[in-house]
Amino acid sequence: MTDKPTLAVVGATGAVGAVMLQILSQHADVWGEIRLLASPRSAGRKLVVRGVETEVLALSEEALEGVDVAMFDVPDQVAAQWAPVAAAKGAVVVDNSAAFRMDPDVPLVVPEVNPHAVRVRPRSIVSSPNCTTLSMIVAVGALHAEFGLAGLVVSSYQAVSGEGRAGVDALRDQLSLVAGTELGTNPGDVRRAVGDDTGPFAAPIALNVVPWAGTLMDDGWSSEELKVRAESRKILDRPGLPVSVTCVRVPVLTTHSLAVHARFENEVSVERAHEILATAPGVVLFDNPAAGEFPTPADVVGTDPTWVGRVRRSLDDPTALELFVCGDNLRKGSALNTAQIAELVAAEIRTA
Amino acid sequence: MTDKPTLAVVGATGAVGAVMLQILSQHADVWGEIRLLASPRSAGRKLVVRGVETEVLALSEEALEGVDVAMFDVPDQVAAQWAPVAAAKGAVVVDNSAAFRMDPDVPLVVPEVNPHAVRVRPRSIVSSPNCTTLSMIVAVGALHAEFGLAGLVVSSYQAVSGEGRAGVDALRDQLSLVAGTELGTNPGDVRRAVGDDTGPFAAPIALNVVPWAGTLMDDGWSSEELKVRAESRKILDRPGLPVSVTCVRVPVLTTHSLAVHARFENEVSVERAHEILATAPGVVLFDNPAAGEFPTPADVVGTDPTWVGRVRRSLDDPTALELFVCGDNLRKGSALNTAQIAELVAAEIRTA
Repeated sequence: MTDKPTLAVVGATGAVGAVMLQILSQHADVWGEIRLLASPRSAGRKLVVRGVETEVLALSEEALEGVDVAMFDVPDQVAAQWAPVAAAKGAVVVDNSAAFRMDPDVPLVVPEVNPHAVRVRPRSIVSSPNCTTLSMIVAVGALHAEFGLAGLVVSSYQAVSGEGRAGVDALRDQLSLVAGTELGTNPGDVRRAVGDDTGPFAAPIALNVVPWAGTLMDDGWSSEELKVRAESRKILDRPGLPVSVTCVRVPVLTTHSLAVHARFENEVSVERAHEILATAPGVVLFDNPAAGEFPTPADVVGTDPTWVGRVRRSLDDPTALELFVCGDNLRKGSALNTAQIAELVAAEIRTA
Repeated sequence: MTDKPTLAVVGATGAVGAVMLQILSQHADVWGEIRLLASPRSAGRKLVVRGVETEVLALSEEALEGVDVAMFDVPDQVAAQWAPVAAAKGAVVVDNSAAFRMDPDVPLVVPEVNPHAVRVRPRSIVSSPNCTTLSMIVAVGALHAEFGLAGLVVSSYQAVSGEGRAGVDALRDQLSLVAGTELGTNPGDVRRAVGDDTGPFAAPIALNVVPWAGTLMDDGWSSEELKVRAESRKILDRPGLPVSVTCVRVPVLTTHSLAVHARFENEVSVERAHEILATAPGVVLFDNPAAGEFPTPADVVGTDPTWVGRVRRSLDDPTALELFVCGDNLRKGSALNTAQIAELVAAEIRTA
């Protein structure tokens, strides 16, 4: 019928799945059949991809038959169970969960940074990084290639959609509650208006910032903070890289921002950093404060690249740069990177 | 009549002035007469301080007659003009503007950190730091006293009230505009809803974060970022301290937050840091993520201390700590610190 590979989208009915179908409809069409898979309770739903209404099938061994590439966007435990099944059926799995990211036999790939890594995949599984890592790593990777990274200190400003629909609903609900109390002018107003139900966040998120994302790990670190450290090291192939991260949730719907302090092995200049970032694939340099130009989530949301602004050389360290970086956590931070990895694999299959 | 010193509150009718009168009514009463001064157009208004309705007088040479201590909360240029006048009349001026902070003949004082500095004031002027510096320096100063600070990397999450009433109004107005468009679900929604008038901010502040505060200085730095660096160095008496700051405005009404990466001369431990912070004056240690305890603006607003949580030792550097710090920018960040300095001066005058 076609020499193009068959793609399965596993988790097609979720929030990231929706963005994935959008991206598949926009990108150059490298796929033959596109099969949409989801949990049994979503089976039978019809979704549009590449302009064609397509019925969602329940995830099963049979449904994975004949699949060349399977993109997974499902909870960690579902991925842990089903990715090896798909791989055993002959598919290359591109997994967006945390289940395999730190497995030494699974490459962790950002196509602009370490595309070569995709080719060595003993388990036939390739992982896509966490959205927070992805929101900065394309820009940081481009600078690393030139200057040699020596350390990162990162503070995040993470959007609520990183917690899925529950996060978005919590912010919406809380904003309407707070609006009814003259927008929290007085001490305690926000707490009182929001009440005890703060949704997936540990404190109110409307008119507030919450320094927590993920689960509690050893020594007070959050899982999200440790992911950014471990994943950055693996993607950049710098196992000992010093990385300190503080993850903070902010009342933004979609697009993560990060303030990055990056130390390098060599002296840096803003001019050279500008040149690198202006020509790096997947990066938009937006850095002209005199004209009010720096990235903000409101401008970045819905776009593919990593936006970089506020590039400054540290006044006390000629080897360090400060950056402010924004990336859409549902696009590059999730569906887009997965699709890009799958396209790398498709190109490899076709030229094999 | 009384041996208690006479206090003038210059700028009594502003937003910080209102908090100042609140604080003067709450604190131990060390003052004799309290005179309220403001611009001629506010003269004649009546405000309540210590339960007494008091008429606001126009700022003038005569109005400063007999004043022992004058707290100024007025724009930089008004302070630059009138603080020396008050000093010449015999008053000790405690100035909350940026006009004198970096003057080598004017001490920059945080009573919990460098109270001794208040006594050396050749111009009879004492400055109070910027609200962003003040939101972290009490906690950082306590740790510095034990471990010896070697460097800071700071990212701020600054409330809109740092831009005064215009900042608060802009966030309120924009939130109601955005609410009318289903809260900015789609790319461009926030920009479209808010329109071109973003108030004192360079981009929409509702459902957004804006990596800018202050005016543009050399090499892409904002004035706010340079203030935090210069003021931290002066308060801690460490002129060469490496300090890198990125200032970001967030949709919070009041209370600044900061993610702080602090390197020290000596090895640190979370246990010892906890002990120091738990007993440091002006600090609340609130650090138990297992119980969901870390400071957020919604809980800190309206309180006096600097709240500290998320204390972690850097995994790759035994001399570095990560902290998340919150402080009410209108209280400790402004009126409260000014009042505390004035009270130090009052104690000195009475014991002289």
